[in-house]
Amino acid sequence: MTTILKLGGSVITDKAREGTLDEDGLAVAADAVAEVNAELVLVHGGGSFAHPRADAHGITDTDGTDDAAAVADVHSAMTALSDAVVGALHDRGVSALPVDTLSAAARDGDGDLSLPTGAVERMLGEGFLPVVHADPVVQTGAGATVLSGDEIVTSLARSLDAERVGLCSEVPGVLDADGAVIDRVDRWADVAGALGGSDGTDVTGGMAGKVRTLLDLPVPAHVFGPEGVVPFLAGETPGTEVRGG
Amino acid sequence: MTTILKLGGSVITDKAREGTLDEDGLAVAADAVAEVNAELVLVHGGGSFAHPRADAHGITDTDGTDDAAAVADVHSAMTALSDAVVGALHDRGVSALPVDTLSAAARDGDGDLSLPTGAVERMLGEGFLPVVHADPVVQTGAGATVLSGDEIVTSLARSLDAERVGLCSEVPGVLDADGAVIDRVDRWADVAGALGGSDGTDVTGGMAGKVRTLLDLPVPAHVFGPEGVVPFLAGETPGTEVRGG
Repeated sequence: MTTILKLGGSVITDKAREGTLDEDGLAVAADAVAEVNAELVLVHGGGSFAHPRADAHGITDTDGTDDAAAVADVHSAMTALSDAVVGALHDRGVSALPVDTLSAAARDGDGDLSLPTGAVERMLGEGFLPVVHADPVVQTGAGATVLSGDEIVTSLARSLDAERVGLCSEVPGVLDADGAVIDRVDRWADVAGALGGSDGTDVTGGMAGKVRTLLDLPVPAHVFGPEGVVPFLAGETPGTEVRGG
Repeated sequence: MTTILKLGGSVITDKAREGTLDEDGLAVAADAVAEVNAELVLVHGGGSFAHPRADAHGITDTDGTDDAAAVADVHSAMTALSDAVVGALHDRGVSALPVDTLSAAARDGDGDLSLPTGAVERMLGEGFLPVVHADPVVQTGAGATVLSGDEIVTSLARSLDAERVGLCSEVPGVLDADGAVIDRVDRWADVAGALGGSDGTDVTGGMAGKVRTLLDLPVPAHVFGPEGVVPFLAGETPGTEVRGG
């Protein structure tokens, strides 16, 4: 059974400095992944590599561009970050391979995503660990829009029939109105009051949208901070468990 | 209707110097592509960027490796070459986007290729020009093997129902025993005597295998040298026409 772990861009990049790794954050996550024996797919966001460039070009997950150079600019920032993640895993003896979604995915005119998983499944079958990254994706009628790591996770959770999904960001879980971690969310109504809208500085949306999406998944999802990666991969339930089905 | 043009690695790289572009060769091809109005998919090989590395790691189109770092090494050489090709097209106002086949394709245990085309078709629909490159590809039971540009062309010719296929290499066409360009090949028997085996220095095979594969295609294919790119894209028939169906 496959486990999917998403590392938010904020965990592996320095949000304050464009195009700069958070070396410590990446090392902690890579160390944890290197300890795991399970069949794992890693997904990561764009952080300070991609968001400033997407913002500069005016590309979001719904607003696209026909400017191929702008698309390639965001894409090359993402592949640079992916290379760093894959390299950190190779340094620890993990058989990681990069998967870029611009090359495989597409959205229809309603923005619905198709993400074929033939390559990812073959990688898992051969003992490789696929590292799938947020990327521009071509969309009917819109040029190219942004495909977030969260959206990749929810697509892969279904298509790979994943057993567990973990989303690691800079916050320790879904927080209530007092800033405390909520252990478990079963229904949107339980958290609607505590969760605001999406974070305006992040082209991929904030916690409210994330929880709503995770509630729709057929598998349990866990939302945690960097300290949760090791326990999550060990089968524990750090942070918030979101289980809608 | 879609036209597919493959630029052999020997046309756009300096075969004598590892990881070095043939700037003139790339400029000629990019200039020609920039003049075209047709719906076009560009495919390119690895040349001196990828072949020396694939050789060093012992990876061919049939011999694979489980070494993820070796796979990533060949892949990163290919993406660097792809970036150069895409950049040359952007410089000329062409809306090119890179497509990497490691992220999309897979081979089964018999070596048969699956190359989903959702992303490529969506790019064409949105007016982008997909630039698809030779790459490692994961294969059941073999780790990762090499996927050549020629193999990508034959797969896409079928799946995209292409109208015409052009293969540009450093030779002006399929040559007879005297070194003259054969105008047209309809059957393997016509050229079996003139064509030797595959070129031992090229992990992706030589002319004999190429002609055999092109004869199996349901669309006309044209084999020509760099001087044939402009006439091919103008609808002419430079070099050798291979038409088996």
